[in-house]
Amino acid sequence: MKRSDRLVGITNYLIEHPMELVSLPSFSTMYNAAKSSISEDLTIVNNMFQQEGIGYLESVAGAAGGVKYIPHLSREKCNEFLDQLCNRLEDSSRLLPGGYLFMSDLLGEPQTVRDIGRLFATAFSDRDIDVVVTVATKGIPLAYSVASFLNVPVVIVRRDPKVTEGSTVSINYVSGSSRKIQTMVLPKRSLPDGSKICIIDDFMKAGGTINGMVNLLKEFNAKVTAIGVLAEAEDEEEERVVEQDQYLSLVRIHNVDVKNNQIEVIKGNILESME
Amino acid sequence: MKRSDRLVGITNYLIEHPMELVSLPSFSTMYNAAKSSISEDLTIVNNMFQQEGIGYLESVAGAAGGVKYIPHLSREKCNEFLDQLCNRLEDSSRLLPGGYLFMSDLLGEPQTVRDIGRLFATAFSDRDIDVVVTVATKGIPLAYSVASFLNVPVVIVRRDPKVTEGSTVSINYVSGSSRKIQTMVLPKRSLPDGSKICIIDDFMKAGGTINGMVNLLKEFNAKVTAIGVLAEAEDEEEERVVEQDQYLSLVRIHNVDVKNNQIEVIKGNILESME
Repeated sequence: MKRSDRLVGITNYLIEHPMELVSLPSFSTMYNAAKSSISEDLTIVNNMFQQEGIGYLESVAGAAGGVKYIPHLSREKCNEFLDQLCNRLEDSSRLLPGGYLFMSDLLGEPQTVRDIGRLFATAFSDRDIDVVVTVATKGIPLAYSVASFLNVPVVIVRRDPKVTEGSTVSINYVSGSSRKIQTMVLPKRSLPDGSKICIIDDFMKAGGTINGMVNLLKEFNAKVTAIGVLAEAEDEEEERVVEQDQYLSLVRIHNVDVKNNQIEVIKGNILESME
Repeated sequence: MKRSDRLVGITNYLIEHPMELVSLPSFSTMYNAAKSSISEDLTIVNNMFQQEGIGYLESVAGAAGGVKYIPHLSREKCNEFLDQLCNRLEDSSRLLPGGYLFMSDLLGEPQTVRDIGRLFATAFSDRDIDVVVTVATKGIPLAYSVASFLNVPVVIVRRDPKVTEGSTVSINYVSGSSRKIQTMVLPKRSLPDGSKICIIDDFMKAGGTINGMVNLLKEFNAKVTAIGVLAEAEDEEEERVVEQDQYLSLVRIHNVDVKNNQIEVIKGNILESME
């Protein structure tokens, strides 16, 4: 096979298998080429991925070695995407009664969801993560997007147990913003003991839901190593139950002025973590 | 820029933007190359995509022309994936009380979810689809996966209205298997009038939920042009409310023998549609 054909094949393979160690011999077999040729191909791919600002190839030396594609957005691309996101969210027609913001359209766009996942994966690339956990419903697409870049499974916490999930562990918690008692359940067989967890959610006000998840995960002996939320809102009446340095947010809903129909959306703390 | 670099860049761009028409001049600008060189690059990419069995490039002639990457799994790859899926689902430890099957682990794997989406996108590639619709919770990752390959947005039907979605339209329906009256809601602003819809869900027994969605979508003047379910189960007691020729399934749970702890899972009707 010619180099040009191999480059298409290898690029496709690596993009489809992020964070997966691929040995040079396996590429040799796949594309029927000498290891030295494959090695040159990988140098080309690595340079180009970096130039495009989408990530890089990490080389692992030794007999069990190979290369791993690490999705990693350049700071410039992160900034660009966050500016766009803030802009789109500041549209006053998103304002709903009670100071909530309509975001379902954005969360319905696969490309936007993919970009959000890539950004979180970039920020969390040095954390130890076995599983991404989210709570139904709106966090689900974001969680899958993050998980696909980190190459780990997703586990979904539900508010209602379902017969199709077998026996479950449940906890009650107090929602920060509504002060209502709510329930969360997780199927018993969904998490191996001692898993390292990345929690992803779409929205955080006082942080009651995130806090509830952290407590539920303790029942599984799991360790939360990363928390990411798409949007955080400031709430003057409630105290935050999750500390600023424990989570990363993409955007912060700074000022919702229902009377004058205006919203101010600023970047969250995610870029600070990438310095 | 050299051909080898361009091939990496173009492959990455096309995979990230399926079903999107990209003009030759825009590639020319992106990679600072003559249109004739880009044209040769695209021939190489097209041949390799077909050889790898992941799809092909469609050329659109004329001034507004360009190329479009159509994700399309080869029949061989479809078969291989379905065999694997059936095998994994036949594991008797999946059996839950009531004859249900535990599938959350499979649905938690981003790679499996991606493959399922690619398969549905392949089967539905000639249908007219503006939006993918699913119902919370387990269908959501599948819906996003299908939508990402078709390059259309996702809309999620909920069982409970949420304040963050504004005004909603709701219907009541009778669930086929439990015969309970249930509610489904969809935010008013979520669907443009007259949209063409692909419904995706994880599981279908009598088809009550799918039927409920079809009825709810009528309120939006929408037209359902495709229905895909991951697994269908046969139910002797209930009559199907969705006809065999109206949906495609990946697998069929053929025989659940709770007494002897055995499950038989066979391929669904999706391959028949691809002949």
